[in-house]
Amino acid sequence: MGEGMLRRICHLGYAVEDLEAAAAFYRESFGAEPSEPEEVESEGIVTSMFRVGDSTIELMQPTRPDSPVAKFLDRRGEGFHHVAFEVENLEEALRWLGKCGVELIDERPRRGAGGRRVAFVHPRGAFGVLTELVESGGEAAG
Amino acid sequence: MGEGMLRRICHLGYAVEDLEAAAAFYRESFGAEPSEPEEVESEGIVTSMFRVGDSTIELMQPTRPDSPVAKFLDRRGEGFHHVAFEVENLEEALRWLGKCGVELIDERPRRGAGGRRVAFVHPRGAFGVLTELVESGGEAAG
Repeated sequence: MGEGMLRRICHLGYAVEDLEAAAAFYRESFGAEPSEPEEVESEGIVTSMFRVGDSTIELMQPTRPDSPVAKFLDRRGEGFHHVAFEVENLEEALRWLGKCGVELIDERPRRGAGGRRVAFVHPRGAFGVLTELVESGGEAAG
Repeated sequence: MGEGMLRRICHLGYAVEDLEAAAAFYRESFGAEPSEPEEVESEGIVTSMFRVGDSTIELMQPTRPDSPVAKFLDRRGEGFHHVAFEVENLEEALRWLGKCGVELIDERPRRGAGGRRVAFVHPRGAFGVLTELVESGGEAAG
């Protein structure tokens, strides 16, 4: 296992202080089409997304001071927050990464946005990059 | 202009302290196939790249303490360094961004790796994300 596990860049998550300003910036300067803001209560964020080729850029503004993205902004300021890669079989991927000794935040898949199965690799385990794995297809499956 | 300027994610640049260890990590844990290390004298880095779908991950280790990537590592530690988007016409894109008041590092295209025409948007001008624009095609053109 492990061969060619990463199928594509699903999305990049950017942490921003002001979602409206960031969305306007990408709309006006780059001709992107950010989606209507959507609150993700469980993560304590409001997001707006736009497509770039086969991937998505996800702008994220915290909605409460104890959300992970708020803490990230306090510590690091605005900027890149995480990358998400598509994998075909998430459980198999996590088993393999566990065997390899990779430090995981989620040892089992959990439900992310749109009901997709996702899991995070700890940035300590991935040379400083917070890395999300998203299972192919299965939008709202289960 | 500006409509749909960003065609795809060309690559993500990750700053690492130890290129060999990072390449081994992506090879062994994710089944990626990082290229042989290549020195980019002008940038003061040695890089190794691997494909993910339609994009590339570029691992970058500094070769001298005054290179921009070395300074980045001192300041921020290992992790995401920049994102590169493909654009069709770089000169037109830069003119448009200038008109929009976006803060640019390069006001004119310069030659990047493989002879491609590239330019950087300042992270101050892009919500904290160092953003490279790479012109389509034209590998080693001109």
